[in-house]
Amino acid sequence: MARVCNFNPGPAVLPLEVLQEAQAELLDFKGTGMSILESSHRGKEYMAVQQEAVDNLRKLLGIPDEYAVLFLQGGASGQFAMVPMNLLGEGQSADYTNSGAWASKAIKEAKLFGKVNVIADTAKDIPTRLPAPGSLKPTPGAVYLHVTSNETIAGTQWKSFPKISVPLVADMSSDFLSRSFDIKPFGLIYAGAQKNLGPAGVTLVIMRKELAERVSEKVPVIFRYKTHIEENSLYNTPPCFAIYIVTLVTRWILKMGGLDVMARRNVEKAAKVYSLIDASSFYRGTAVKEFRSDMNITFRLPSEPLEEAFIKEASAQKLKGLKGHRSVGGIRASIYNAFPPENVDTLVAFMKEFERKNG
Amino acid sequence: MARVCNFNPGPAVLPLEVLQEAQAELLDFKGTGMSILESSHRGKEYMAVQQEAVDNLRKLLGIPDEYAVLFLQGGASGQFAMVPMNLLGEGQSADYTNSGAWASKAIKEAKLFGKVNVIADTAKDIPTRLPAPGSLKPTPGAVYLHVTSNETIAGTQWKSFPKISVPLVADMSSDFLSRSFDIKPFGLIYAGAQKNLGPAGVTLVIMRKELAERVSEKVPVIFRYKTHIEENSLYNTPPCFAIYIVTLVTRWILKMGGLDVMARRNVEKAAKVYSLIDASSFYRGTAVKEFRSDMNITFRLPSEPLEEAFIKEASAQKLKGLKGHRSVGGIRASIYNAFPPENVDTLVAFMKEFERKNG
Repeated sequence: MARVCNFNPGPAVLPLEVLQEAQAELLDFKGTGMSILESSHRGKEYMAVQQEAVDNLRKLLGIPDEYAVLFLQGGASGQFAMVPMNLLGEGQSADYTNSGAWASKAIKEAKLFGKVNVIADTAKDIPTRLPAPGSLKPTPGAVYLHVTSNETIAGTQWKSFPKISVPLVADMSSDFLSRSFDIKPFGLIYAGAQKNLGPAGVTLVIMRKELAERVSEKVPVIFRYKTHIEENSLYNTPPCFAIYIVTLVTRWILKMGGLDVMARRNVEKAAKVYSLIDASSFYRGTAVKEFRSDMNITFRLPSEPLEEAFIKEASAQKLKGLKGHRSVGGIRASIYNAFPPENVDTLVAFMKEFERKNG
Repeated sequence: MARVCNFNPGPAVLPLEVLQEAQAELLDFKGTGMSILESSHRGKEYMAVQQEAVDNLRKLLGIPDEYAVLFLQGGASGQFAMVPMNLLGEGQSADYTNSGAWASKAIKEAKLFGKVNVIADTAKDIPTRLPAPGSLKPTPGAVYLHVTSNETIAGTQWKSFPKISVPLVADMSSDFLSRSFDIKPFGLIYAGAQKNLGPAGVTLVIMRKELAERVSEKVPVIFRYKTHIEENSLYNTPPCFAIYIVTLVTRWILKMGGLDVMARRNVEKAAKVYSLIDASSFYRGTAVKEFRSDMNITFRLPSEPLEEAFIKEASAQKLKGLKGHRSVGGIRASIYNAFPPENVDTLVAFMKEFERKNG
């Protein structure tokens, strides 16, 4: 069977050559006579794999030495708790922006650990939107400002980040590695891997090492960033196979030309769909133009029955995963880094034909 | 290259046919036109995989309905914290047995959450040993008793479990699914997958559902068992690929005949090495006979230089991963379920020949 057009929001499509390489060496990793799934996390073969993932990420993003690059588990949902556990000291407060479903979850967990100031809230706005970065008023004394760089459900994405004096903390799960950005304003960035970075099961954290020193002795050893920095993400057994795929994916991005090439490709892919939507009275984008995401394109049709028909017909033509999140409905086309440009053309052609027949 | 004899303590050897199946369908899972690595965790294909893993485990262990079977992340090290976070209420105490390196870590984390009574401590005993199950004196009022069923570093294994009135909580990371046991005395069992169950990256938890109700509202949502029971391990994106391998491994165990067959195979495999050690004055087992593990066979040679030579020569003959844990030295042969009996014969032959040349 040929590969389908995989619009899944995450876990999501991976580069075909990454899958092919993983398949080819699944029984015998680099002549070791064992699978990477069976290799010791303290053996030199696996350690080289993990180190390459770190090196590739440092190269792609220009991450300076004062930042640690960690591979943890538990996804962004785990980080919603770990961030305040580590960074929000007793009696301190942190600023959060509430931009949608994911930011709301981060806020909920943070409230268990300290005072949370929600300094901007666009979570319920329709059409979906984000706070204007320049409009944010940080709370005096707040120790960090949390943002969600891309809301997968709402289809919104920060195009630039707030310029403030405290460290930014960002959930970049759904657009990490889709573009380059200046890392210096960020104290901590986290991302579940299963969109642009690899399969589900590994969580990337990039953080200023000095911030890890804040942690209280009351926090379990396993939930301290400090532990994982000191042990180079090998305090406990890491999710080796997922990290191995991250290595292959980051190698693929480097080979493609790096993040600026990726970003151009992503903008071009998204523009093809958005320009069809903008020119159509049949399709209606759900996000305000200036905030719409290059990763998750969300739109509606004139009626829910038409949306159902759209999803069903698309699926029959091997366009899979187009159903919007169950909390909002509608259509969502997730087109991360590894989503092939030619499959965007297939979607655009399908959308035109569907409108012709049903418009 | 032929497969080596993989004595890794974890991540460890997997059944060859599991790896072959995973390889064969890595690019196209069951005709879906995408890899299982790219499949949505909420799609019917993946959900069926996860459900089969649960069903297989219920079948293998005879797990009744009042227990939940969960797939989490973070390994046993994560559970060292999650167990007391969820089960140890304010002002309560719990009993722990300190049987070695892993139990010690569990105790250290638990102390952050409440009073911990270490009611037996054999962690520093040489030769390595475990508390006699019948000798344990539970503390009045303690809400659970924690045991580590198999200490991978010390090479010790509980052959039977304490009979007490409070729920047992067990770290079974390194011998789970190696034998059958009566689950009813257990309130909660956890196991990192990377020994008998699958690759690194997924943590199995089996628990009485009623125990999950104890959790305080101060515990982050992501760290509550209750959350994961309610959401069927899909509150956040699970480590899908690792769970998929667990499905294949549990299917393989069922095909092999279940846990009693596994246990007999494991005892026979271990007995081959132990009887050589018992008959030899060259090799010396590090664990007291009645507590020695069928999973991790630990032994010493007359000198450290001889141990180094043993490991080096073994490696040259494709016997890999025999080095003891860095904290204790010596030799460790980990021979989990998937370790082929014929490779044990290879080890025994190697040991005899090495003794003949160097004894």
